[in-house]
Amino acid sequence: MFSFFKKNYHHPLSKFIKSVFGFIPKNIFYYELALTHKSASIYYNKDFSINNERLEFLGDAVLNTIIGEYLFHEYINENEGFLTNLRSKIVSRHSLNNIAIKLQLTNVIKQQPDLDILASNIPGNALEAMIGAIFIDKGYDFTKKIVLAKIILPNVDWQDLIENDTNFKGKIIDWAQKHHVSIEFKCESTYINDKQQGYIAEVWIKNKMVGTGKGITKKEAEQQAAKEALGNIMPTQ
Amino acid sequence: MFSFFKKNYHHPLSKFIKSVFGFIPKNIFYYELALTHKSASIYYNKDFSINNERLEFLGDAVLNTIIGEYLFHEYINENEGFLTNLRSKIVSRHSLNNIAIKLQLTNVIKQQPDLDILASNIPGNALEAMIGAIFIDKGYDFTKKIVLAKIILPNVDWQDLIENDTNFKGKIIDWAQKHHVSIEFKCESTYINDKQQGYIAEVWIKNKMVGTGKGITKKEAEQQAAKEALGNIMPTQ
Repeated sequence: MFSFFKKNYHHPLSKFIKSVFGFIPKNIFYYELALTHKSASIYYNKDFSINNERLEFLGDAVLNTIIGEYLFHEYINENEGFLTNLRSKIVSRHSLNNIAIKLQLTNVIKQQPDLDILASNIPGNALEAMIGAIFIDKGYDFTKKIVLAKIILPNVDWQDLIENDTNFKGKIIDWAQKHHVSIEFKCESTYINDKQQGYIAEVWIKNKMVGTGKGITKKEAEQQAAKEALGNIMPTQ
Repeated sequence: MFSFFKKNYHHPLSKFIKSVFGFIPKNIFYYELALTHKSASIYYNKDFSINNERLEFLGDAVLNTIIGEYLFHEYINENEGFLTNLRSKIVSRHSLNNIAIKLQLTNVIKQQPDLDILASNIPGNALEAMIGAIFIDKGYDFTKKIVLAKIILPNVDWQDLIENDTNFKGKIIDWAQKHHVSIEFKCESTYINDKQQGYIAEVWIKNKMVGTGKGITKKEAEQQAAKEALGNIMPTQ
């Protein structure tokens, strides 16, 4: 037992985890797996390989529960719409990518070297997989402590998240539902400049086009289009 | 302490929980709240009322984590796509409504009497809120035991879920992505018969309409349309 502990303690990844998350793993294998991107999958035979996607699936749910529980107790007078909205911003790909980069997870992720890790969701996905690994290795209550104390609370600007609501698509869908009008997003792939492929999105309300937007991802294009549409349909104050 | 226990034990709702879930609650208030539908909200003043929506928000995440953890260990050779798909069927509104009705939660839910509870998502939502209540009252590990032993495992036909894949929308989206063709769902509200309002959905692939469907909910209409579309695009075997 002691030798197992000692071995883990001297494992380079254990040292990294100790310095970033403040604890020594029991089973280091889960953490190695959590940092293995699909492009660096470990093949056991031609039909069976492993990478961090299963742990990411688990970590995603665990993170939602931890943040959900935290917000439930922290914002006792706010309704579930507020809680859902705030949580979705905390656990967004954008937010998790930033946290993962700040925690220097990018230095220990295994992936194909030609992938541009900083322009991808690889860091945020690996962070979710790490949360899945902690959960499998140490259980829910321990994971909750680490996620809040080491990952979320020091790296999330709560006030900024609450005040600056940038989910324009969500806002305009809410607006359309409230006013009982049909709304439709149309999205096509296009070139957004000479070289870069991306998307163009349109927002249609009652068969009238009220906003367009372009972006590298479909989501970006739709957010841009929704933002423009909100400007067009909302009365100026 | 003993009187508190005794009081809870003789509370009618405690007896119900003991008989259905096999344990005595610590704080019965959470469970009462979990069974309070929005239409029976408790008003403290005109601006502040409470109902089961916050606990449903929490229970939804807790249930996803519990089922995720269970499937992660149970299906060690399946990838995250399989796990995601199987979980989404287990925690679908349809599945949770059925389980809640079977557990007779409908007998203890507080709601406006003129709502048709059996034709709504009220039972499934209340079941999620109950899971949120158990989690707040007793913690993750206890909740996991109850959810698996009393709620999910006795009431879910695993083999049927694995074999009969009814997520037609998911299937056709996967197909379109795999074949790099654009796909679009269009949905409008309509009358689906003389009296009943509902939705009509269309599936468009490469600017060609390949399937239509009608349903009471948007989701039903889209599933119908996707099913028809799959029949039209898939080569007969």
